[in-house]
Amino acid sequence: MAEYTLYCFAQSGNAYKAALMLNLAGCDWEARFVDYFNGETRTPAFRAINEMGEVPVLEHKGKRISQSGVILDYLSERTGKFGWKNDDERREILRWLLWDNHKLTSYTATLRFMISLAKTGETPVTEFLRQRSSTALGILNDHLGKADWVAAGRPTIADISICGYLFWPEEFGVDYAKQYPNIGKWLERIKALPGWVHPYTLVPGHPLPEKK
Amino acid sequence: MAEYTLYCFAQSGNAYKAALMLNLAGCDWEARFVDYFNGETRTPAFRAINEMGEVPVLEHKGKRISQSGVILDYLSERTGKFGWKNDDERREILRWLLWDNHKLTSYTATLRFMISLAKTGETPVTEFLRQRSSTALGILNDHLGKADWVAAGRPTIADISICGYLFWPEEFGVDYAKQYPNIGKWLERIKALPGWVHPYTLVPGHPLPEKK
Repeated sequence: MAEYTLYCFAQSGNAYKAALMLNLAGCDWEARFVDYFNGETRTPAFRAINEMGEVPVLEHKGKRISQSGVILDYLSERTGKFGWKNDDERREILRWLLWDNHKLTSYTATLRFMISLAKTGETPVTEFLRQRSSTALGILNDHLGKADWVAAGRPTIADISICGYLFWPEEFGVDYAKQYPNIGKWLERIKALPGWVHPYTLVPGHPLPEKK
Repeated sequence: MAEYTLYCFAQSGNAYKAALMLNLAGCDWEARFVDYFNGETRTPAFRAINEMGEVPVLEHKGKRISQSGVILDYLSERTGKFGWKNDDERREILRWLLWDNHKLTSYTATLRFMISLAKTGETPVTEFLRQRSSTALGILNDHLGKADWVAAGRPTIADISICGYLFWPEEFGVDYAKQYPNIGKWLERIKALPGWVHPYTLVPGHPLPEKK
């Protein structure tokens, strides 16, 4: 049995944040596939694992940890990798983790879900989400024009969190080279880190089975 | 001059999270009103203060700190109040801070903005946001059925963050007594904490001037 078990599925960029950290940090881990698309996260059994009804959940030595940002924090402390060296760095990393959750992932993940998974087509809701997601991507692109990495001048869990949904640009309709070149170059730097693997390869559950 | 300066405006529940913490912790602080509704957060001068273009920003001893969750973390460490006693508590508090940013505030604040400030009326976007906000409020209501406080068995910055937009139920159309009774009772417990003040009284900028 592996040291770490991660409850996850391939289409969740939030699960990918945790999986990528486990891989980049060289942890001994295994995936526990969660059948989100058939309703597993809404079952009482899963709610007993995480009352928030979400992946990822990390199991380690009898602990169960949820929220990708908390898992990243825990793993950086356990492994000594991708974390902070002092309180100022810790807060700068936390600032970008919170921004990611509030302003980037919340809108981008939902936009991508509607366009590529629920296949709603373009609606007032996708238009709203795209505008919010674009604002966030613009702020990130500007920030990455001034620094190679999001915080602390080196790869940290802030990068690992923020990139969670960004390896699927075609699924939410952006072209980094044309629209957000600094983000495109930063994603190439992440891809060059030893242990990087694309989410659809790293996490089980892709492709989705055809609907009957 | 006060020890802490908070960039804020009354309609921002995120600014209120920081203002409420300053008040509950008995800090010597002053508000620096930000004229959001006339575009101040989009000006280059404000972007130099916070590249994310958002309130709140806390100034303290030459530091500028943004993201409400980071400000709460900073203040709890500085004041020794509403924080954690060990790493498990720190992560449990962080978990709810992240959940608030991602799942509760992101949707609830935007819903309330559209209904009560932009006055869009009911649209597909408000319907989408209300569904997301209701899911989050349901999870919080269930959680507060099992505990008086969000984390650690006592009032912490998790409560202070999560309540940020919740003292305006009429502005996003919920009735706690009917829909989320545990949330209603928990908000009464927060109101009973020494130093609690309603956001429209605590933070400058309410009411908005009439549009000409």
